[in-house]
Amino acid sequence: MATPVQENLITSNKSYAANFDKGHLPLPPGKRYTVVTCMDARIDPAAAFGIDLGDAHVIRNAGASAKDALRSIVISQQLLQTQEVLLVKHTGCGMLTFQNSDATSIVEKNLGPEAVTAVKDQFGGDFLPFKNLEEQVKEDVAWLKENKAIGSNVTVSGWVYDVTTGKVKNV
Amino acid sequence: MATPVQENLITSNKSYAANFDKGHLPLPPGKRYTVVTCMDARIDPAAAFGIDLGDAHVIRNAGASAKDALRSIVISQQLLQTQEVLLVKHTGCGMLTFQNSDATSIVEKNLGPEAVTAVKDQFGGDFLPFKNLEEQVKEDVAWLKENKAIGSNVTVSGWVYDVTTGKVKNV
Repeated sequence: MATPVQENLITSNKSYAANFDKGHLPLPPGKRYTVVTCMDARIDPAAAFGIDLGDAHVIRNAGASAKDALRSIVISQQLLQTQEVLLVKHTGCGMLTFQNSDATSIVEKNLGPEAVTAVKDQFGGDFLPFKNLEEQVKEDVAWLKENKAIGSNVTVSGWVYDVTTGKVKNV
Repeated sequence: MATPVQENLITSNKSYAANFDKGHLPLPPGKRYTVVTCMDARIDPAAAFGIDLGDAHVIRNAGASAKDALRSIVISQQLLQTQEVLLVKHTGCGMLTFQNSDATSIVEKNLGPEAVTAVKDQFGGDFLPFKNLEEQVKEDVAWLKENKAIGSNVTVSGWVYDVTTGKVKNV
């Protein structure tokens, strides 16, 4: 018995597949770039950032963390020859609203001490929250530029997307 | 001086923002679910999986790895009250085409031994490749269901998207 969310996936995908004509696209991104952005529900990277199907890798995680995305970025560059990264964080990000201690307390209250242990064991207990949006974009960009796992030929730029206006700006 | 990729972002986003009328959407996903899928350039989750703006968190990484996504999934559930996960891997995934030793050799050849050390220090040197698509979907789903950091009230389902037909199927 499918849930409403699963039913929506099945029904929507039927319409999508019925009109699908991009089955010929190759694996490597045609425009050889990678977008790192947040998982936030208010962001549609393809539409808002002009990414046509087949153009770019799109990595998304809570907060658009460069650190969290590093494995995927290295694969994108080393195995699929991308040469540029656009790192896009956004206004109103949930990661600006809590600290690790808050998140840990919530996990403990909802799921018990075993869940706190699981979080520590599985990703070190760091939820990667941050305090200042533009500063964190700059920090992540600098971290990638200096990272020895990233080729020095790779161009990295940082951006902020405003979820209330739909506009991006370079920072 | 903007690169062509940056110029494309700026130009495309101007058109998007000019017609943007969703600035009122709240932070928590309206349909309270999370999609985990691959960074692959041939996937447009909003269009292919029927995700309207504001509906769902979308997490993307190389291979749609549940393990790599865990921090973001826990934040989605514990801090933003999502209750369901759709995990979607896809045919023709790059992660089926190499082993850790291959990726490590490529990194060493392109960037030198310092890069191999950086990869080991920063994400344990595991690129998380896999050998069998459907089996890996099932393994990731089982891993999430058994994970103590995930609430037992959370529904997790596994899917494969075919990049040549645009169709998803439940596995």
